[in-house]
Amino acid sequence: MLDKGPYSTKIQGVNGLYPYKVKVERYLKDLREYFLDRQKVEEMLSKGENPLIYVVYEIDREGEGEFNVGCTIIYPGKIGDEYYFTKGHFHAKEPTSEVYVGISGKGVILMQDRDGRTFVEEISQGTIVYIPPGLAHRSINTGKNELVFLAIYPSEAGHDYETIMKTGFAKLVIERDGKPILIDNPNYGRYL
Amino acid sequence: MLDKGPYSTKIQGVNGLYPYKVKVERYLKDLREYFLDRQKVEEMLSKGENPLIYVVYEIDREGEGEFNVGCTIIYPGKIGDEYYFTKGHFHAKEPTSEVYVGISGKGVILMQDRDGRTFVEEISQGTIVYIPPGLAHRSINTGKNELVFLAIYPSEAGHDYETIMKTGFAKLVIERDGKPILIDNPNYGRYL
Repeated sequence: MLDKGPYSTKIQGVNGLYPYKVKVERYLKDLREYFLDRQKVEEMLSKGENPLIYVVYEIDREGEGEFNVGCTIIYPGKIGDEYYFTKGHFHAKEPTSEVYVGISGKGVILMQDRDGRTFVEEISQGTIVYIPPGLAHRSINTGKNELVFLAIYPSEAGHDYETIMKTGFAKLVIERDGKPILIDNPNYGRYL
Repeated sequence: MLDKGPYSTKIQGVNGLYPYKVKVERYLKDLREYFLDRQKVEEMLSKGENPLIYVVYEIDREGEGEFNVGCTIIYPGKIGDEYYFTKGHFHAKEPTSEVYVGISGKGVILMQDRDGRTFVEEISQGTIVYIPPGLAHRSINTGKNELVFLAIYPSEAGHDYETIMKTGFAKLVIERDGKPILIDNPNYGRYL
């Protein structure tokens, strides 16, 4: 039923969706090039510390005009001052949009166009965030609990992780005096 | 901001979304050809009874790859034994899908392909219902409170109300012994 035709699934809070088709786990090791304090990351990994950063439960589909539905759980935590986040990506196929629906927790959606211009929207329970065509998007958990949100996007959108992997985002979200602030990324454009 | 670029909006329960761009109200008069007991409808209207059946708060967009986001509130009530519902429509542009997210209340999503084959999914708080390409969809409030849900669909999908207006849905959802049941529509194919 999840592969073809209509279906329904239930939001399970920090346990994502049930039923679902795919579960993706991203550990610190999978994001080792993404955090600002790379030295800290390598120290942690060398000591065997490899925390789970986020999980995605997804129902993906195939075919023209179909949508994927995902539920992302980003755990609370920081590497140095930098909050846990998702890798972030552009859609490989443009123009395609994405809609997020906040379920619980607190966070920030960081978006960036291909010229490096950034946009920020806050997300929490009951917030809908619209990511229009052409913007890379990263989700950042700035709260003390899991950040849980739904994502709805075209099945054909695809993921271009490479561009962000090469340049990074122009902005970063870090904690200063106990609060999230947006700073310029000193490594922007110099990742790979 | 709602017209171009990213935005965020907040779910307001029975008050829909805020901010929003468009608010559509559908009264009994707007649905006079849709209910099974047309005599009852005409009696009510002739007595000046014209209840509000549902409201949609929407942020619509223009352009390729954009999504519309809507929040529908269907009030609780019946015409005879038949629960209040939305008109129901096919998408004018196929193939396009739609995703519903249940916010509160209790209901049924009735879907139908162009051969008259029907599908049913229940919806309530935390339920996601996926409407794949090619299926007409009608939402029915089978509960005692407002049924509130989000809808996300391509801006270019468009609405083909005419097909359903002409044939009706092959099934109807009515109350029997205090509970919703699905029955064959005796008027199916004979509307206009």
